[in-house]
Amino acid sequence: MKIVIINGPNLNLLGIREPEKYGFRSFEDYLLELRTRFEGCELEYYQSNVEGEIINKLQEVGFSVDGIVLNAGGYTHTSVAIADAVAAISAPVVEVHITNIYAREEERRVSLLSKACVGVISGFGLESYRLAVEFLVGNKE
Amino acid sequence: MKIVIINGPNLNLLGIREPEKYGFRSFEDYLLELRTRFEGCELEYYQSNVEGEIINKLQEVGFSVDGIVLNAGGYTHTSVAIADAVAAISAPVVEVHITNIYAREEERRVSLLSKACVGVISGFGLESYRLAVEFLVGNKE
Amino acid sequence: MKIVIINGPNLNLLGIREPEKYGFRSFEDYLLELRTRFEGCELEYYQSNVEGEIINKLQEVGFSVDGIVLNAGGYTHTSVAIADAVAAISAPVVEVHITNIYAREEERRVSLLSKACVGVISGFGLESYRLAVEFLVGNKE
Amino acid sequence: MKIVIINGPNLNLLGIREPEKYGFRSFEDYLLELRTRFEGCELEYYQSNVEGEIINKLQEVGFSVDGIVLNAGGYTHTSVAIADAVAAISAPVVEVHITNIYAREEERRVSLLSKACVGVISGFGLESYRLAVEFLVGNKE
Amino acid sequence: MKIVIINGPNLNLLGIREPEKYGFRSFEDYLLELRTRFEGCELEYYQSNVEGEIINKLQEVGFSVDGIVLNAGGYTHTSVAIADAVAAISAPVVEVHITNIYAREEERRVSLLSKACVGVISGFGLESYRLAVEFLVGNKE
Amino acid sequence: MKIVIINGPNLNLLGIREPEKYGFRSFEDYLLELRTRFEGCELEYYQSNVEGEIINKLQEVGFSVDGIVLNAGGYTHTSVAIADAVAAISAPVVEVHITNIYAREEERRVSLLSKACVGVISGFGLESYRLAVEFLVGNKE
Amino acid sequence: MKIVIINGPNLNLLGIREPEKYGFRSFEDYLLELRTRFEGCELEYYQSNVEGEIINKLQEVGFSVDGIVLNAGGYTHTSVAIADAVAAISAPVVEVHITNIYAREEERRVSLLSKACVGVISGFGLESYRLAVEFLVGNKE
Amino acid sequence: MKIVIINGPNLNLLGIREPEKYGFRSFEDYLLELRTRFEGCELEYYQSNVEGEIINKLQEVGFSVDGIVLNAGGYTHTSVAIADAVAAISAPVVEVHITNIYAREEERRVSLLSKACVGVISGFGLESYRLAVEFLVGNKE
Amino acid sequence: MKIVIINGPNLNLLGIREPEKYGFRSFEDYLLELRTRFEGCELEYYQSNVEGEIINKLQEVGFSVDGIVLNAGGYTHTSVAIADAVAAISAPVVEVHITNIYAREEERRVSLLSKACVGVISGFGLESYRLAVEFLVGNKE
Amino acid sequence: MKIVIINGPNLNLLGIREPEKYGFRSFEDYLLELRTRFEGCELEYYQSNVEGEIINKLQEVGFSVDGIVLNAGGYTHTSVAIADAVAAISAPVVEVHITNIYAREEERRVSLLSKACVGVISGFGLESYRLAVEFLVGNKE
Amino acid sequence: MKIVIINGPNLNLLGIREPEKYGFRSFEDYLLELRTRFEGCELEYYQSNVEGEIINKLQEVGFSVDGIVLNAGGYTHTSVAIADAVAAISAPVVEVHITNIYAREEERRVSLLSKACVGVISGFGLESYRLAVEFLVGNKE
Amino acid sequence: MKIVIINGPNLNLLGIREPEKYGFRSFEDYLLELRTRFEGCELEYYQSNVEGEIINKLQEVGFSVDGIVLNAGGYTHTSVAIADAVAAISAPVVEVHITNIYAREEERRVSLLSKACVGVISGFGLESYRLAVEFLVGNKE
Repeated sequence: MKIVIINGPNLNLLGIREPEKYGFRSFEDYLLELRTRFEGCELEYYQSNVEGEIINKLQEVGFSVDGIVLNAGGYTHTSVAIADAVAAISAPVVEVHITNIYAREEERRVSLLSKACVGVISGFGLESYRLAVEFLVGNKE
Repeated sequence: MKIVIINGPNLNLLGIREPEKYGFRSFEDYLLELRTRFEGCELEYYQSNVEGEIINKLQEVGFSVDGIVLNAGGYTHTSVAIADAVAAISAPVVEVHITNIYAREEERRVSLLSKACVGVISGFGLESYRLAVEFLVGNKE
Repeated sequence: MKIVIINGPNLNLLGIREPEKYGFRSFEDYLLELRTRFEGCELEYYQSNVEGEIINKLQEVGFSVDGIVLNAGGYTHTSVAIADAVAAISAPVVEVHITNIYAREEERRVSLLSKACVGVISGFGLESYRLAVEFLVGNKE
Repeated sequence: MKIVIINGPNLNLLGIREPEKYGFRSFEDYLLELRTRFEGCELEYYQSNVEGEIINKLQEVGFSVDGIVLNAGGYTHTSVAIADAVAAISAPVVEVHITNIYAREEERRVSLLSKACVGVISGFGLESYRLAVEFLVGNKE
Repeated sequence: MKIVIINGPNLNLLGIREPEKYGFRSFEDYLLELRTRFEGCELEYYQSNVEGEIINKLQEVGFSVDGIVLNAGGYTHTSVAIADAVAAISAPVVEVHITNIYAREEERRVSLLSKACVGVISGFGLESYRLAVEFLVGNKE
Repeated sequence: MKIVIINGPNLNLLGIREPEKYGFRSFEDYLLELRTRFEGCELEYYQSNVEGEIINKLQEVGFSVDGIVLNAGGYTHTSVAIADAVAAISAPVVEVHITNIYAREEERRVSLLSKACVGVISGFGLESYRLAVEFLVGNKE
Repeated sequence: MKIVIINGPNLNLLGIREPEKYGFRSFEDYLLELRTRFEGCELEYYQSNVEGEIINKLQEVGFSVDGIVLNAGGYTHTSVAIADAVAAISAPVVEVHITNIYAREEERRVSLLSKACVGVISGFGLESYRLAVEFLVGNKE
Repeated sequence: MKIVIINGPNLNLLGIREPEKYGFRSFEDYLLELRTRFEGCELEYYQSNVEGEIINKLQEVGFSVDGIVLNAGGYTHTSVAIADAVAAISAPVVEVHITNIYAREEERRVSLLSKACVGVISGFGLESYRLAVEFLVGNKE
Repeated sequence: MKIVIINGPNLNLLGIREPEKYGFRSFEDYLLELRTRFEGCELEYYQSNVEGEIINKLQEVGFSVDGIVLNAGGYTHTSVAIADAVAAISAPVVEVHITNIYAREEERRVSLLSKACVGVISGFGLESYRLAVEFLVGNKE
Repeated sequence: MKIVIINGPNLNLLGIREPEKYGFRSFEDYLLELRTRFEGCELEYYQSNVEGEIINKLQEVGFSVDGIVLNAGGYTHTSVAIADAVAAISAPVVEVHITNIYAREEERRVSLLSKACVGVISGFGLESYRLAVEFLVGNKE
Repeated sequence: MKIVIINGPNLNLLGIREPEKYGFRSFEDYLLELRTRFEGCELEYYQSNVEGEIINKLQEVGFSVDGIVLNAGGYTHTSVAIADAVAAISAPVVEVHITNIYAREEERRVSLLSKACVGVISGFGLESYRLAVEFLVGNKE
Repeated sequence: MKIVIINGPNLNLLGIREPEKYGFRSFEDYLLELRTRFEGCELEYYQSNVEGEIINKLQEVGFSVDGIVLNAGGYTHTSVAIADAVAAISAPVVEVHITNIYAREEERRVSLLSKACVGVISGFGLESYRLAVEFLVGNKE
């Protein structure tokens, strides 16, 4: 079983960027933990700050893997093109957010991606990723 | 450890109501499965169609239990009073939805409750409840 | 044949409440006339000021009776939960209003219930109820 | 007693136009049935695709007949001028719609005519016309 | 002389709920002080978390008492039905708020009840209730 | 010198239609007075309830007369097509209204025609027409 | 007979300020012409850039003169206080504008004053003032 | 093969009306060129300033011809009734505009007709008509 | 103890201006009564029609008195500058209104000042001032 | 003569992506047909999922080729930067869409690019590209 | 060379008013520093809380000085009249703000003045004034 | 001391692109002048048309340099992701614009970046960059 985690802009700064909001841990560090927990499952990780490269990645893996966990960062609120890519591929995509975007500033409360995703998990810190993988693994079983 | 699941209006009709949207399984049936999976954890279940009774329940358990899983059904989109109750109590509340509300009609895309909840899990069918319990159990540990 | 008439908040004050707007006759009084006119048809009557109890009633009768006439009063404009209940049941529901809500203040011009109802009859005073029963009886025939 | 039924644009295509939405029966055919049912009442029928001609008709009959049943079709949502004509005349006007316009697309949910009409009957198929005549006959009695 | 104070949802938690916002004193405690100050006046107190029960209470006392002090809590911003009840009864109703709702979040700045009330007193902590009683007593004199 | 006065829908009912709002005098009657006052000036008068016929008239006279006084009635607020006709012709057009449309209901406060007209005169009863002619005569001089 | 013309902010710059929009003539110069034309009528003139002084003037003359011609300049679009003053006094007030404000930028198309004025004359250059006086004189007769 | 070109209000003024915007050529002149280019195809031409007559024409030809090219002029932005007629008929309708309406004033950027048409061609001057015929001819082949 | 009452535009006309709305009593007259009632308290009174002079007064007294009662009249709805002055000073400011502004026209329902004031008292006629002073006196004690 | 066709995000998936909406044919396949049809004309083709690379391409070719056919996919609705690039270059740009975007979901009905393009062709499937080239070739002649 | 600095309402309280937002230094104090830095340049300073007096000042100096630095305080967001004055005069006006208004509350993010000013400098504390003078001096050179 | 200037999309066309709006000078040319003026300061320059590459650059330099001058071009109005990057880094960022964006078309008047920047300088042509550097240099001192 294979799942791809895709992180969007500025998520490469996790642990450094506004830590009181996004936490003090880097994603690479957390990824080790995730891989340990789901050891029967291959977890690929990809990060890019470029909208179009996220689309490239979605297209590349979207017809073969068992699921995708997508945190598109700031593009969540502005990208029709990423939403189109999600709708175009066949793998199920789970939208995740570290903070609870529905409890934040007005402009972060609307996600353009949701309507193309299976579901949304928002607000559980890095645990949002674990819950998403949990679902995809259970979904496959 | 104790967790309370609170379901709002019309969720007592699960399995009967628009099954192509909400599934063919009653919540009682699913609850059995949940209790088996989380056997070290006490899972209380409450359902009401009355907004004020949901508030009563939140107040009653909200200062003593370890977490609350709340699906407020139609009140999700209209109740400032339930949101106030969630903000007033001390137990962490996870908002769940069976369908992906952000992918549905305009009026279902906004939840008044989110800003008072820890996080939101939306769109995974009945599995949304499992993921919520999963988080609360992990949160406690 | 059985039809249930459900009245929402403040409609128990008919005849007393702003009579220049809602008329000088109590609903109980009018009900006698209705029952006489449709004597082959059982007309049950229910009124509640509590949103959730209206949902309870809709769920209770909504899978067995031949039709429901619903005047949800002030909840017409604010209740997603009642609309969900109407959509969940199988009996046809006719939405009625004593005054012509589309000719009143801004906030009364939008009904959240309409999209789940068969149709709307608005503005004919108490006669709105008669026309609704008229339709349901004809519909059954 | 005399009642005039006025149909607006495209209603001359009833039975042909999108029949899954508007039904398979022409209005002329239905009119025969209506006239039989209300035989003590003269039912005049008029249809036009021209907004101004509908106004002409309303002005022509609006000071002498006992009631008007008006389905202004697409002009319902855009015509201040027809609303003005309805307000200017003395006969009571009942607004009718075959489909439940409040359950349709955004732009069909608002009627500019309602505030000048006695009431609205919407969503009962061709039976909407019968209910309207029913009211006007009862009103006169 | 008789005045009824009606408190809506979550106001039974006063002193416990977000005390930095709503204060550290329970309403029961404050009520003693109020009754002492206005000793010639009977002050009845009622609280409910259920919208419809607030309507029931308004209807029950609204035709006989000399005034009503209403803090509808979260229902202030969402209830057309309570506003209808206030408009339906004959006793003067004063709307009160502990915090200054016009200085709070967007969704708390609009009260649906105001247009049916005599006036509004907002932002003086528990003293808002005293000022309201003050007015009603003076009004009666 | 030649000026054309064009009246839109329902203005043929002046003196009959809601006289407390539009006055008790027919336009024909007032026209006599106008012609007397401006005797050196040819005043043509045209009225139609049909939007397209108003456009026909504007096109017919709009390249030869010295000015046009236009009261488009209800079409004022809804007709892009009449505005286009006004912009297309060469004669100056003065927009007039009997009532002060800016002091009326929301939907009457916006005129789609204004941006194509020389100016607007609104609210002076039938005298609005006189002032418009006054301007056009002075303008020509 | 006495009429007061009140000009608001920046109208003291007429002839200097954006002449392609407002013309090349000062108001003082035009006033001479107006006084000549209406010689039986006393025409007082007042200009101020201060909102409150315009209110002072309206209050000072508003209970004794036969009419007021008001061009409130930029305050037209922002002053509830001037509108209140116009509503408070007894003299009829005619709102005038040199340019056709309804054909200009969005923010100039709405006048807060109109609802308190008898009528509006907009877009006829300085002649707007003459037409206003014309009306007030005729109104008096 | 037969195609009908329908032009709406003011398009009879092409060549005369705001030529810097709409060009210096009359439609009749251009039609000659079109007929030469598509000589195997019968091109009927119809123009009216009356909304309802455009509907009449659409209904008359809409069940028999191979395609319709529709430039509804100002009615593009305001007519639900023409959109209904387009949806009601069976011939494919191509919406055309001489200017690029999406690059013009706010109120011209929304077409009510588009959702009922096959497609839209906007901004190519009179060539928009040629491209539309081109498509319909290719479509038929 | 010293309290300053500041009245904004047109409140100098109390008793004269629209008395059915604002009452038949002048403020000066009412002030005598207030001073009698609160005799241990110095009540200064200031009125101006000029926005900037109200700011001048707020700045002048705002760092030394025990409280300010502010009815900014029409500036309530439009003045960011007065709100800034209220926020800048140290004395507590109570916003008052004679009529219940939340029950009036749309544009009077929003106060720009509220967020800078301690609280709001609206709708009790001149008694609104008494209640405000009542609070400030109690606040001081 | 040289024309460049630029396709934006996800259009590389044509034939695979939601074929019921976008068709079963790949763009490369269609391009062969286009090149055959316009053999006197060089047709360059470029596709990228990256917004900035589309801008790079527009800048690279935009000062030398005879025309550009641009389908910016999802960026159509969100990219001010691409619109700026179109405005900055000298070659005429025709905006095309495979589906009729004006007949789709709300967020796809507005193109930010249109105001910088010569014109728009929307809804003719892959034939939209042919019509665009048709125009550019004719334009050049 | 002569430059005038105009400060609007409440800026006379700099150093006293909300110092955590606006700083602890009075403008007079800062002015000394500015005059030292730009000694070849005459820097006049004017402050008023009255909107109309700011207009008076702009008119007085606006046709003779080399530049104006304008911080209109709260009037920035509400004054069409000051914007008109800026547009009417010939001196270049630079709009400045101490705080970054675009990063503050909703109602402070829109300036009505900007469209009439050369440019805007916002958010650099008192240094915003220096940068503005810097520009005007360089502009003159 | 080190400052980085980052230019977004289409700014590489300065001098070529709409010169009447953006000027006739290339940025490279202006940069020479800037470097001469601030010779004690290292001025790095970076330009990209790709949103994600601007984020890459901000992340790369944002934790070490003394200040950043950012003109994000068209991304100013649409990029939440760039705003997030600005908020994530530690160097102060000054937002600059060549034209006065607040005086341009609606969609250019809102910057998503401002709330994360120290301040904004808009409308001074290329001099906007100089003023920004001026501030950063002074800020450092």
